[in-house]
Formats: sequence, structure tokens, C-alpha cells
Amino acid sequence: MIQFTCDYTRTAVPEVLEALAKAKNQYTGYGEDEITAEAARMIRHLTGDENVAVHFLLGGTQTNSTVIAAALRTHQSVVAATTGHINVHETGAIEASGHKVTVIQTEDGKLSAEAVDECLTTHEKDPNVEHIVQPAMVYISNPTELGTLYSLKELTALAEVCRKHEVLLYMDGARLGYGLAADENDLTLKEITKLTDAYYLGGTKCGTLFGEALVIKNPMLKKDFRYIMKQRGALLAKGFLLGLQFRTMFDGESLEDTLYYKYARHAICEAQKIRATLKACNVPLLLDSPTNQLFPQFTEKTLSRLKRDFVFDIWSPTLVRIATDWSTHPEETEKLISTIRGEFCNSPF
Amino acid sequence: MIQFTCDYTRTAVPEVLEALAKAKNQYTGYGEDEITAEAARMIRHLTGDENVAVHFLLGGTQTNSTVIAAALRTHQSVVAATTGHINVHETGAIEASGHKVTVIQTEDGKLSAEAVDECLTTHEKDPNVEHIVQPAMVYISNPTELGTLYSLKELTALAEVCRKHEVLLYMDGARLGYGLAADENDLTLKEITKLTDAYYLGGTKCGTLFGEALVIKNPMLKKDFRYIMKQRGALLAKGFLLGLQFRTMFDGESLEDTLYYKYARHAICEAQKIRATLKACNVPLLLDSPTNQLFPQFTEKTLSRLKRDFVFDIWSPTLVRIATDWSTHPEETEKLISTIRGEFCNSPF
Amino acid sequence: MIQFTCDYTRTAVPEVLEALAKAKNQYTGYGEDEITAEAARMIRHLTGDENVAVHFLLGGTQTNSTVIAAALRTHQSVVAATTGHINVHETGAIEASGHKVTVIQTEDGKLSAEAVDECLTTHEKDPNVEHIVQPAMVYISNPTELGTLYSLKELTALAEVCRKHEVLLYMDGARLGYGLAADENDLTLKEITKLTDAYYLGGTKCGTLFGEALVIKNPMLKKDFRYIMKQRGALLAKGFLLGLQFRTMFDGESLEDTLYYKYARHAICEAQKIRATLKACNVPLLLDSPTNQLFPQFTEKTLSRLKRDFVFDIWSPTLVRIATDWSTHPEETEKLISTIRGEFCNSPF
Amino acid sequence: MIQFTCDYTRTAVPEVLEALAKAKNQYTGYGEDEITAEAARMIRHLTGDENVAVHFLLGGTQTNSTVIAAALRTHQSVVAATTGHINVHETGAIEASGHKVTVIQTEDGKLSAEAVDECLTTHEKDPNVEHIVQPAMVYISNPTELGTLYSLKELTALAEVCRKHEVLLYMDGARLGYGLAADENDLTLKEITKLTDAYYLGGTKCGTLFGEALVIKNPMLKKDFRYIMKQRGALLAKGFLLGLQFRTMFDGESLEDTLYYKYARHAICEAQKIRATLKACNVPLLLDSPTNQLFPQFTEKTLSRLKRDFVFDIWSPTLVRIATDWSTHPEETEKLISTIRGEFCNSPF
Repeated sequence: MIQFTCDYTRTAVPEVLEALAKAKNQYTGYGEDEITAEAARMIRHLTGDENVAVHFLLGGTQTNSTVIAAALRTHQSVVAATTGHINVHETGAIEASGHKVTVIQTEDGKLSAEAVDECLTTHEKDPNVEHIVQPAMVYISNPTELGTLYSLKELTALAEVCRKHEVLLYMDGARLGYGLAADENDLTLKEITKLTDAYYLGGTKCGTLFGEALVIKNPMLKKDFRYIMKQRGALLAKGFLLGLQFRTMFDGESLEDTLYYKYARHAICEAQKIRATLKACNVPLLLDSPTNQLFPQFTEKTLSRLKRDFVFDIWSPTLVRIATDWSTHPEETEKLISTIRGEFCNSPF
Repeated sequence: MIQFTCDYTRTAVPEVLEALAKAKNQYTGYGEDEITAEAARMIRHLTGDENVAVHFLLGGTQTNSTVIAAALRTHQSVVAATTGHINVHETGAIEASGHKVTVIQTEDGKLSAEAVDECLTTHEKDPNVEHIVQPAMVYISNPTELGTLYSLKELTALAEVCRKHEVLLYMDGARLGYGLAADENDLTLKEITKLTDAYYLGGTKCGTLFGEALVIKNPMLKKDFRYIMKQRGALLAKGFLLGLQFRTMFDGESLEDTLYYKYARHAICEAQKIRATLKACNVPLLLDSPTNQLFPQFTEKTLSRLKRDFVFDIWSPTLVRIATDWSTHPEETEKLISTIRGEFCNSPF
Repeated sequence: MIQFTCDYTRTAVPEVLEALAKAKNQYTGYGEDEITAEAARMIRHLTGDENVAVHFLLGGTQTNSTVIAAALRTHQSVVAATTGHINVHETGAIEASGHKVTVIQTEDGKLSAEAVDECLTTHEKDPNVEHIVQPAMVYISNPTELGTLYSLKELTALAEVCRKHEVLLYMDGARLGYGLAADENDLTLKEITKLTDAYYLGGTKCGTLFGEALVIKNPMLKKDFRYIMKQRGALLAKGFLLGLQFRTMFDGESLEDTLYYKYARHAICEAQKIRATLKACNVPLLLDSPTNQLFPQFTEKTLSRLKRDFVFDIWSPTLVRIATDWSTHPEETEKLISTIRGEFCNSPF
Repeated sequence: MIQFTCDYTRTAVPEVLEALAKAKNQYTGYGEDEITAEAARMIRHLTGDENVAVHFLLGGTQTNSTVIAAALRTHQSVVAATTGHINVHETGAIEASGHKVTVIQTEDGKLSAEAVDECLTTHEKDPNVEHIVQPAMVYISNPTELGTLYSLKELTALAEVCRKHEVLLYMDGARLGYGLAADENDLTLKEITKLTDAYYLGGTKCGTLFGEALVIKNPMLKKDFRYIMKQRGALLAKGFLLGLQFRTMFDGESLEDTLYYKYARHAICEAQKIRATLKACNVPLLLDSPTNQLFPQFTEKTLSRLKRDFVFDIWSPTLVRIATDWSTHPEETEKLISTIRGEFCNSPF
């Protein structure tokens, strides 16, 4: 069986495993080692902002809840799309740290500047404002949980709205590598750094064993951040394991030179082949995602045929998620494509 | 100016003020006095269940968040209507105690058994169930925030769904007096006691200075409840003040004999007069509420005229809430009615 | 039986009850009425600082946990004496809002500037500082839980240490009236306002039915405070009940002119008579408290005799707390004194 | 420089790194893969109880706070020694999940059955019991933070006290491997399983890259545990990484057959050589620890000499912690020993 369920089915890119195998020294604990410092310097360089803080945490849920707990006072909420990961798939981690997720209904997983502006304005104008949680941060994921991407124009508009209302803008970048490597993407890391208060470059889903590289620009959020990491279990004793992996992934003069980008680009190429096939075969797509996640709506019969050889993430009886990643073998892609073609098209291409 | 904004504009019913004025003794603190015990016995008697626990807390937000904090484990949520008070008007009190409010969209402020069943079934069947908060309590308000009422049939069906899924059913009764006294009501206190795990008989909005009488039937929820009250600031040092008020309000062989009921019934009568007038004048109503809250949609012109003499709670430019209560003077009602008639009907009745 | 157990056994001073009986108007809810505004103005006047915020909350535990939740970020703690109310008698309310109480061992319930300086310095110098909660507020009670008082010199030194380390200083004034009215007291309300970031003037134990008047000087703490009150159940629907009571108690050009002071002074006088008797009879005292709480160590035989007519708060088999308050009748005091004399002195005075 | 600072300076035992390098398959996420199931089976086998639940979490702070959040209701506390890791070195993680740590002063880091009995009895007998957090779990670490060990007799007595008072007993086993491998140890894994409600076998400090194997016997604690792991960021996307490591470490018919034990035993042997040297040289020890942590009190001069070649964890100007671990090379130990001897003894052994 070949799994296209998700982007965390295999260990890590070979270079990361090699770096780990070679690390025979003794290192200082809790991320205070020189390798971690070097990894942070590399990422700072790529962001174009020497003043950002870079921290390495273990996973997405932890990163999100740590950032949000660090940012908000007790009466404040974080605004997210109804489909936002923090709203639906973190078992109430945000609420467990005391904060409501204020939701905005969306079709494509993205928050528009207009919708956020309306949400924040409505709150500010409410005559009973104190009876309602105060939105103080906007959470977006890019790519979203539905594989869609923010454009530079959209992110700029959103950032302006956030600044106007004095709320923070935070980007969950669990799959940011795949976003940055997408054909349709027009955002750079430098622009993301300029437009947001914090974001993370996901490692777990983009080729490391685990780990997320959090970039913080906002000074209030930077302050005492390691305390909050420790409190949330995010200060790994062997922090150098994160340093080793991210130093390997982010070594490069520009993002395009890094392994992080190269492996993400590979995943995009594999996804694009599948996307093209689905379109050619007129398989309906929930959304025309440009990233590594595709959401085709198969017929029962076709899905049943595909399930003989492939595993997908099942969203509804016939809607599935197909995800490629840094480790997807072209032969795996090829086999999936030819099976789909065989089912749908009944004709050679 | 006459206020029809809400049901907490005046101090308390005269009998409560008299009881307070006469209380010259020394009493044991924190609700461990004999008066409070007597008030609890009276309420227990009216519920028809000698085993329920009765506690007196200070206000609605406090009561809701204390009950929910007592009931849920860290990964559990409480299900509510989107319009539910805990979801929109308690500044994230539930989230501040660590729990998500899982919302169900409704038209009339009520949760149907079907909608709750679907919500709970969807959770249980989710393949990634552990990634999602676990609904473990259903919160309803009766009357709802929109003035609507649950029927015996509806509450029975809801209770059955809750038992089937092993979740608790909790009723916010901030205005329960007005609900029980409504013409359309077919629920008794004894039935509510049988069908729910906990509920409260609101005092603040129904004639006491402050205070809510919480009735708990569920054994798990009863356990150690006073600890949790103390932690949440709900164990009033002079707890006998609550005992004094609720003993005054609930002294009676049956509910209908109590001051609580009689004053609620008065408010309903006043509201009914206004409701009849609104209908006679063809003023559109958001919902045809049978309780003490009415939601007419006036024209700008009419509202502007009414605002010369009356204060309402403004919900949108022309939608207002008119609330009567135990203290509404018939002359106040009469003046409102004649002003509305004058505006709308241009004809003598 | 006469109770000397505590200072919250009777309803309220007559003037408060009268004010309540006379209040027949309709008032705006949630403390936004004019009476509450007037009460706040009166208190602001007495503090000598027109810029302080004044809020009225319901009780001590609620006030403490609301202030502390408003002040601290998630990784921060509040420093208190081991005997501090927040550490031992609030059922973990501070921890329930996410914060550790960092304790300092004391003999007399007071925190010395030196001890606090050492505690804060130790934290700052810890090489693993991020692994330890960061103290960010110092909590003191004045009078303390043991009836002792801070002198102007002590409070000034403590305030200097707090400013040096950039932590807030908060005073729990549940019995502040009794402190300000004590013979040994050399602190004024104006000095307390200058030296602390926030404190409250307790009502519950000093003659109101309930309620505490919180004074906030620190701008960060002022911001959005009503949101946090609402979240913690501290925004009373009929907030005017607090306004009515505190307007009655704090009407005066100077503190000494107010009912708050006069009733506190009465309690002190009664306590002083008992204290003099205890000393004359050589009854050992846990501490020589100048306020309304006394802690005599009786013999078993004497205590057994006293228990025939009086109720005390039992701290250990023979150590009791005797508390007077605004309502203590001189005859009650006289009866206690003569019984003690009869037991101990066997001789006319 | 050779580090004896702690037991997490190097990556992992070679067998773990090899297992990782060889893992080329696709695995199901979130610990639902077969390798993780196999690792759990191996550990269950070693505990002698087929019904225990085994979960793999990422680190000690996370494991402790997840277990405690799962176990306690909102008004409950966990009892720990003042030196307990949860009390002093987790940045308030327990409080951040809403719970107080009720502390007992100890000399050697261990909680005696008598001290716990007294603490729990005192609470139960308090007349104001509801005003105080309710201890509901006892937290011990074995070895303790001071390197000391519980004997079978001590743990049995403690377990009996916990059962008598109906509180849970939880053992933090961050260094349990080193405890089980110590010469003075008389506890087996099977006995620990019988006597406690939950405990963990630490991986991070005992040879894995990261990870802790939590064993839960108590049925209430087992229920829904994965939800709470997810909420606390403890459900690693690539959970199979934990399975791979723990399967490698715990493959064996008996504990003594496992790599976990063998590597721990190695660390103990190295520590014992140093301990013998310190004693021979009459270096005062804070405690005569039988495990991998030693706490010698050097003179300034000696410490200054040692610091030329070695790094220790500095506890006070001259008190240091020396830790060996699975990776300590005998030559490193030898060099340390000879340097100490050279300083202290001025004579050949």
C-alpha cells in the first residue's frame, strides 16, 4: 500500500539523518548550544531582518498554543477561520490556555482583510464590549488547511487591517515550505517577515524528523518567550537535535538554495502531476489547491478501486485528501496517476 | 425616562428588602447558616427530589462557569447554541476555565435534540476523534436569550439524546421564573429536575438583589462543589444574604404559591400587554416570544419617537429588546402601549 | 451565644441598609450608573490621585484573582507570604487562573523588603532562569491575616524593592478600614495610593453587605479591566448596589469623616478593650495585633468556660481568633471581658 | 572540555540511531503505527501487567503536566517535595494547567509516608476544608532530583497512605533507568507498577534522542488520555519515531536484558567510580547518592582547578552536580578521577 494520507509518513530527508548520525559531540542543553545558534542565524539571514527572534519548538499544536499563550491577556481571543487548525484539530489547546477562538466563516480556508476588518470593527463598536472577548490576534495558516495560498496582495491587506486595529498577525506555517515552493506563490520569506508579527517555518511536514522554526518580530512577543516555551514543554532537553536539523535544512544564501526549499519543490512537482491528471479526468476538486494537498471528490466506485493500492485521508465518504511530500517517490506518483487515468479516462493520454 | 432595557434595573421585591432590614442576628459565614439551609430545603421541596443539592451563587456568568468547570475534564467542551450566553456574553469565562464552547447554529436560540444528536454523533465517529475537543455537556438556556421556551416534549427529547451519548444536560435559568410563568409554558420544576443534570433558578433578574439558586442532581457534579464555588469567588462571606432572599422568594407549598412565581407572573402579564399591542399594530417581531423579552423591529421614525420617553436595549439600528420584570409598573406599560398605538395605529382601540 | 468568630456575621451598617431601602429608581446595569460613578469619585478624592481607576467587585477572593489574572503573563507568579490569603484560603483561585504563588516564609504575616529583594534577586541570577516562574507581582495584605500592620517605613522600602525589580505591588485590603483606624497605624490612604500599584478597600468585613472597592494606579492594569471583571463574574448586573453602599460609606472630605472610618474605629476600640484585658490577665498572644483580630492562647479549661457563651474561630486546640467588627455591641465586649477576667484574674479590676 | 553537567549532552545510543537510519517505510501518524504498538507491548510485558496503558510523550515537563491535567479536577492539587521538579523547574507548568503544587519540606528530595499522611489528614480535618485546595495526587520522582532512591519499603508505605486517603500516586521516572540499575535499588518495575497509579520510564536522559514512556494503571487516568496528549502538544505527528526508539531500548524478556537497563548500568558504574574517589578524598557530599548524579562540595581552589577541564552544573559557588550517563566514556571518568585525586589526595592510590 502506498500512503498519500499526509506529509509525515517517513522519518526525514537523508541529509538530516546524516547530520544526526555524525553528531558525536557533547552539546549544551535546552537549545543553548552553538549549532542551534547557527541554525537561528541562518534563518534570520533568510528573513532579511537581523532583529527577529528564532526559536525551535517540537510541533504545530505546541507552537500555536505557546505563541498564543504568550501573546494574549486573559480576556483576549484569537481570530481564525472556522477551518483553522487551532479551531478544529488541536483538542482545545487554545482554550486550555484560557483563550477563545473567535471564528470567521470562510469557503477556502483563508481570512480576507474585509472579513477581519468587519469582525474587529463589530467588536469595537459593541455597546457591551466588555461582555465579549476582545480579539487581539489574527491566526492564519499558509498554506491553509485546504491547501490554498495567500497572495502578497491579500497578506498586505490583512496586515494593514491588523495594524489599524492594533491586533497581532500570526501565520501558522506548518506547510510553509510547500507554500513558498508553489508555482502560484508570490510571497517571499522577507515579505512574510515584514507583514506578520510571528510565523513558523514547519519542519515536521517538510522533511525534518520533527520541529518547527518560529520567527518572532513583535517585541512584546519576543520578551520572555523561552520561559513560556519551557512552561509548555517546548524547551527540548536535547535542543541541539532541532539545531542540527534546521541548520541542515536552511543552509543557503537564499531560500531557493536551501534543502528546505528544494525538497518542498519536489513535493509540489509530484502534486502538480496528480493535479493535472485529476483535472484531465474531470475529477471534481473541493478547491483547486496549488500546494501539496489535493482534495478530489471521487465516485464510490473509483475510490473503492484506488483503495486497493493507496491510502488517503478520508474527509467524507468520497472526498479525500491526497498529500505528497518531500519523500514522495516519482514511481509512487506515477502509479497513482496511471490508476486514476485507468479509472476515469479509459483512454491513453 | 422609563427603562425597558432589561430585567435588572431596580433593587429587589419589597419582601426581600424587608427580610434584609429585619435580619439583625449574627449568622455563620459562607452559607453554613440555618437560613440558607432553610432556603435550600424549600427549593428541594419544590423540585420534588429530596436528593438534589442546592447552592446559592452570585450571578449568571459565575454560576455557568463554576458548573462547567466542575463538570468537565480538560479535553472536554460544552455544546451551546451560537446565541448562547456562555458563547457570546461572558467574555470568554468558559474558555478562561480551559474549555471550548462547541457551537450549533440555531434560529430561535434553542438546541433541538436532532442537532445535538448529530453534533455528538459526528464527534464520536470522527476518525481523528482525539484531535477534537470532546463534547461532554449540553448547555441550554430556558427561556433562551431570544425569549423562547423549551416545551416538555423538546426537553424530554434533548434529555434522551444527552443520556444516549452520556453527556450532561445543564439549563441556564437566569430567567427561569419568567419561563415557568409564561402562558405557553408546559414544563414544571419537577420535570426540569428529572430531565436535567443541573439548572439554576435565577434570582438577579427575577426579583432578588442578586443571586442564583443552583440545583444539582448529578452525583459527580455534586461532589466537592463548594470547593469549586470558593475557587471561583462564589462562596459569599455573608452567604446568609442569599439565604434570606431565596427563603423569602421560595416559601410555598407549590411553585405557584411562591413570591418567585407571583412576581414572574406579573412581569409576563405586562409583557403580554405589550406583545398584544405590537401584534395589533403589525410591528414585526424577531421572534414571537412568550416571555418577558420582546424583540420588535420598529421603523426609524417610530423608534426615534419612542426614545423620547423610553430606553430599550438596542440590538441593531431598529431592532430593540423590550424587557419587563417583577418591578414594571402597569402605568409604565400603559404609557408604552399608548405611545406605540399612537405611532402605529393612528386610531383609537 | 455571642460570635466573635469573624467580621462578617451581620448584614450591614444601618446607613447602608437605609440607602438600599430608599433606592426606588431604575438604574443602568453593570456599574454604569451615576451612583456608582459618584462612589468612585468619592474614593478617588480620598486617594489624592484623580487618575486612579476605581472598580467595585463582590468579594476578596474574586478581587484578588481578577487583579492577578489581569496583571500577569502566563509564565509569571505572584510573591506572597506563606500565610497569605491567596496562598492558603482561596482554594487555588490563583493557580486556577494559571499562576503560581511564590512563597516567602514569615513569622508575622508581613513581607519584608529584604526578603522580597532576596527572592527576586535569586530568580534573576538563576542560570536556569527560564525554568522557573518569573515573579512579577508582590501580594501583601494589610492588615495581614495575623492582624499585623505595615508601617509607612516598611511599605516604602517594599515599594522601592518592587520598583527596582520592576514588579507590581498589590495590597489586599479586605480589612484595610481596621488597619487605617488602628492606633499604631501610620499609613494614610494617600501614601498607600502612592506606594502601591493597586489595592482594595474591603467592604464585606468593614460594614457593607458585600463588595470591595479596588483602586488601580498602574496604567497597564487599568487597561481593559472591566473585560476581566466580566470574565471573572465580577461585573454585577445590579452594580448600582455596590455604588449605593460605597457612596454611603465613603462620603466625606477626608477619610476620618467617612462612615467607613468611623465604623472601623469602633471595631478597633472594642478590640482594644479585649486586648488590654488579655494582657492584664497575662494571656499569651500569638502576636500583639493592633487591629480587630486578636489571637489569644487560652488554657483548655478557660476556653471550655468561654465556649459556654461565646463562639470563636478555632485555630488550634487552644489558640483562637477573636474578631470584633463595626457591629460589635459594647455589651458584647463587656460580657467577654468580664468572663475572661473572672477566669484569669480572680480579682476585681 | 568534558561535560559532566547533565545526562542529555549527546544524541542517543548507537542502536537507536541505527534503528532510525534503517526506518525507510511509511508509517501511520500520531503513534497509531505498528512499531509503536510493539514498543508498548514490550513495556507492558516488563511491567507484569497486561492491562496498563503505555503512551510515549516527548519530555518530562510535558509528561508531568499532561498526567496531572488528566488526573485532577479544578479544585485539586498535587503534593510534591519542595525540591520536586514540578515545583521548581517547570516554569509553573502545573499551575498553568490550573493546579496548585502542595509542598512538603524534605531534606533528601523524598516524600515519606508519614509526611504525606500528615499533610492529607490535616487537609481532611480542616474545618474550612473548602477554602483550601484538595490534594488528590502525590508526585514523587525516583531517583529524586537529589539522586536519592525510594526503597521498596518506603514506596509500599507511601502507596498505602495514598490508597487510604484515595489520592493517586504518580512517579516521575525521568531517570528511572539509573534508579533501577543502582546497586542500592531494591525496587523492580513490576513492584513500581503494582504500587503506583502511573509512572514514566524516562528516555531523554537514559539514551534516546527524546521521549518518555508513560505507564498508566489507574482506569480513570487511562480514559481519553490521547485527547489530553493532543491538547498538550504530546501527540507527535511522527509518533513512530518514539516507537522506534523505545522498541530498541525495551526489547528483552526481562528488564536486565534490555538496552535501557544495560546503558543505565554503565552510567551507574561510571558514577560509582567517581563517588568512591570523592569519598576516598573526603570531599563532602550533599547527599550520598547511589545513582548517576553526585553532589560534591569542593573548595573554591579545587573547583577552579577542575573547571579547566570539566564542566559541571553549578548549584552554589562550590556545590556542583556531576552527572554521568549512558554515553560517559571510561576515559572521561578516569580523567576526572585522576584530576580530583591529584587535587585532594596528593598521593598515589
